[in-house]
Amino acid sequence: MNLDQFPSKLLENAVTEFAKLPGIGKKTALRLVLHLLKRETDEVHRFSDAITRLKDEVMHCQVCHNISDTEVCNICGNGSRDHGLVCVVENIRDVMSIENTQQYRGVYHVLGGIISPMDGIGPADLEIDSLLKRVEIGEIREVIFALSTTMEGDSTNFFLFKKLKNSNIRITTLARGVSVGDELEFTDELTLGRSIVNRLLYEQIIS
Amino acid sequence: MNLDQFPSKLLENAVTEFAKLPGIGKKTALRLVLHLLKRETDEVHRFSDAITRLKDEVMHCQVCHNISDTEVCNICGNGSRDHGLVCVVENIRDVMSIENTQQYRGVYHVLGGIISPMDGIGPADLEIDSLLKRVEIGEIREVIFALSTTMEGDSTNFFLFKKLKNSNIRITTLARGVSVGDELEFTDELTLGRSIVNRLLYEQIIS
Repeated sequence: MNLDQFPSKLLENAVTEFAKLPGIGKKTALRLVLHLLKRETDEVHRFSDAITRLKDEVMHCQVCHNISDTEVCNICGNGSRDHGLVCVVENIRDVMSIENTQQYRGVYHVLGGIISPMDGIGPADLEIDSLLKRVEIGEIREVIFALSTTMEGDSTNFFLFKKLKNSNIRITTLARGVSVGDELEFTDELTLGRSIVNRLLYEQIIS
Repeated sequence: MNLDQFPSKLLENAVTEFAKLPGIGKKTALRLVLHLLKRETDEVHRFSDAITRLKDEVMHCQVCHNISDTEVCNICGNGSRDHGLVCVVENIRDVMSIENTQQYRGVYHVLGGIISPMDGIGPADLEIDSLLKRVEIGEIREVIFALSTTMEGDSTNFFLFKKLKNSNIRITTLARGVSVGDELEFTDELTLGRSIVNRLLYEQIIS
């Protein structure tokens, strides 16, 4: 279906706006908009208000730059967490992923991206200076690099490592290895190679 | 990724609202919301305004019930179209599909659904009375049934047919047959059977 002829300009605008979202084509956009049009007026208002309010009112934590409803986020404001242990992540989703493991009791630092010259993202575009300042203050004992295991992630790690190596803190990175539940024959050679070089004591796994 | 722990209530609300849309799960909703969050404030406002305005301001054509920015839609208001020929469709998308063929110069009547007892939709929930009134006025020469070729579509056709058969108008339905470009071996038996019974003069196809 060619979507050039809309019976209404208002409909066309709404479809055009929806189709700007990633992974949403014009056909899907039309389906979603017609769905909204069938819903009750206050439901539709609730939908658009939720988006406007998010954009207008959401804050970024002054300490870790995670999304927050308050000036300091729940995690940074939580006294029972280990504030000497900082996990450096690319974005908010990574914080959510790690939080959902329920295995981490430290705090975070959200860079807001990774160094990627191809996309025009340099160190100055990321929250790197504020990380260095947090380390300078001296309360941080260990920084964990938890960035993507891509070339961009690796170069960001290396950039941060150069900046931090004289700070007298422990610098660690996520363990790389065979995924839990993966079969060896489907594990890529690089991961398998690293996981045999950095092999663990069996006792560590079963504990 | 389990999505129970949101760093922000505002974020959670926006994700919940997005996830109410058909075919959008929580993960996709989060991706879309984080995308919106990265966009400029006025772009986000344009997005939510487009939706609110559509819901608040859009009208339905008084004649054919198609979506419209005015009381009478562009098609019904177009004097160069054939107002004696009315195509009965289920919804707005069907109007757009037929308009996009650029083969039809008549007008429409949008029922707003089809009779479907399973979904609790009866004749009274559809724009059937207004269709009968349009026919009563006497300007209509032919009504084309262009509903889905499902059981619900067929029963709606039959219901309309019973109401209209004494009106002294021509009642037609879309031709059923092998799709243009389809291979015979993949055409279902019912369609193939009908298309051989209702075969066309070859001259009609090539004209």
